[in-house]
Amino acid sequence: MAVTTDLSIGGRHFRLEQHAPESIGHRALARGLSDLAAMGARPLAAFLSLGLPRELAGRWLNRFFDGFFALADAHNTPLAGGDLAESTIPVADIVLAGAVPSGKALLRSRAKPGHLLYVTGRLGGAAAGLAQLNKLAGARVPHGSPLNSLRELRIPASLRDTLNPHLFPQPRLAQGLWLTRHSLASAAIDLSDGLSTDLAHLCNESGVNAELNADALPIYPTATLAQALHGGEDYELLFTAPPSARLPRRIAGVPVTLIGRIVRPRAPMPQVCLITAHGSQPLAPRGWQHFS
Amino acid sequence: MAVTTDLSIGGRHFRLEQHAPESIGHRALARGLSDLAAMGARPLAAFLSLGLPRELAGRWLNRFFDGFFALADAHNTPLAGGDLAESTIPVADIVLAGAVPSGKALLRSRAKPGHLLYVTGRLGGAAAGLAQLNKLAGARVPHGSPLNSLRELRIPASLRDTLNPHLFPQPRLAQGLWLTRHSLASAAIDLSDGLSTDLAHLCNESGVNAELNADALPIYPTATLAQALHGGEDYELLFTAPPSARLPRRIAGVPVTLIGRIVRPRAPMPQVCLITAHGSQPLAPRGWQHFS
Repeated sequence: MAVTTDLSIGGRHFRLEQHAPESIGHRALARGLSDLAAMGARPLAAFLSLGLPRELAGRWLNRFFDGFFALADAHNTPLAGGDLAESTIPVADIVLAGAVPSGKALLRSRAKPGHLLYVTGRLGGAAAGLAQLNKLAGARVPHGSPLNSLRELRIPASLRDTLNPHLFPQPRLAQGLWLTRHSLASAAIDLSDGLSTDLAHLCNESGVNAELNADALPIYPTATLAQALHGGEDYELLFTAPPSARLPRRIAGVPVTLIGRIVRPRAPMPQVCLITAHGSQPLAPRGWQHFS
Repeated sequence: MAVTTDLSIGGRHFRLEQHAPESIGHRALARGLSDLAAMGARPLAAFLSLGLPRELAGRWLNRFFDGFFALADAHNTPLAGGDLAESTIPVADIVLAGAVPSGKALLRSRAKPGHLLYVTGRLGGAAAGLAQLNKLAGARVPHGSPLNSLRELRIPASLRDTLNPHLFPQPRLAQGLWLTRHSLASAAIDLSDGLSTDLAHLCNESGVNAELNADALPIYPTATLAQALHGGEDYELLFTAPPSARLPRRIAGVPVTLIGRIVRPRAPMPQVCLITAHGSQPLAPRGWQHFS
């Protein structure tokens, strides 16, 4: 059994005046489901603790659950319990219980020098979407007034592809299950804090270094290289596999890209190097920090 | 497996300026353990999500964990995971996973007319302690300044017995396990919201009414009848058993008291009646409400 817990806090992980309740509900659950995906686990049940200002306990809460249950249903995840309390700021803690065959859970600690580094989907889309949302919300919505619905932002259809990776990220459960079933991955983590930071986590847990190939990164069409490297909340899977592993180009419709390799840790070397046409440079973790 | 989740929010469930961090850590865990006790479950693991203002992330947090782990160790409950984030107000969500033999979990829904109503320990102590703490803290601590340690309140030794049921409530895990093992209880709930409110929950879930015997209530020495009836956070177990069940006077050192009985629901009758020397009166739920 795998258990994961993720706390979303108003003003920190979302803003009432720019995130519609459907998106806040979706994103709270997506964070937890993505943790299960990174372990190769199948979701069994969700538990939700909500603290809300009283004025959000009616219609806003219904729309929050619209977003929550749309994603929960898509992944057969029943809401099995939770807690509700009044709070001056909104907080949502999502707990997920998942099942994974004994001894098969994907861990962060099993990457070995020589293994190759892969990522699902595209990178930086969530950060690019957030930057665009900040512009839209700043221009349209009076500060401090909660959004009741996505429609209030009057998002032009042309911008939906830009905003979607941020507002409605898709946890890669099918891909994590596929990796477990085929026993191909040696280590895995989900990209919640950003590639540079999550790759550092994986290197720390495995006691290895890594080289990233900048030209190979599957950057989201609207994103920059910096957003792909350091932007959090893409919720793609970053995983390693031995060179002998034959990985498909897509798993359940989502592209899989070879982006680098694991190397032996050596003292003067930086933990992660970014290889570009101009040579190799150290890549410091510059993604999400819990107290920044 | 039993899973429970409980959210504690600064300003709502505790106050930084009157609760020492050790007590906040103890109480957060006690709430979850008490939920397991009410199901007759044995704790397997705890998961803690913490949101904290940055200035509490050092020494204050260490003391929080002192209180947390003292209680966790007493009940063999490892902290198996969690999440930490910055937040403008402190929030702690505690999740507990517990084990209970298949089909043996104590439920709220199996009380039958004719069954007798029991409670562990004494009632109203937490509410009396809170009232006393409000006085002490109001007199001594400047508003808004977090307590770093219990000692800052300079609690006279003579008041410790009064404050303890509020600051360091004891979840009744041994008593819940005993009831499960002996298959004596038909229904159970823990007294987190207050006797009048939690008994109403139990009656609702079981589709029954209840009569409480005021003279039989084991009132904490410093508490009033109103505190015993409506004060929350005593974390005692309220349970029902058929009249044939032979219950001991104490379970694992904690007194067990017969306080009333379950009766058939009849239309004009109130759900819960309080029987006193002067007759019978309706007892409305006046304990903790989630949005009050």
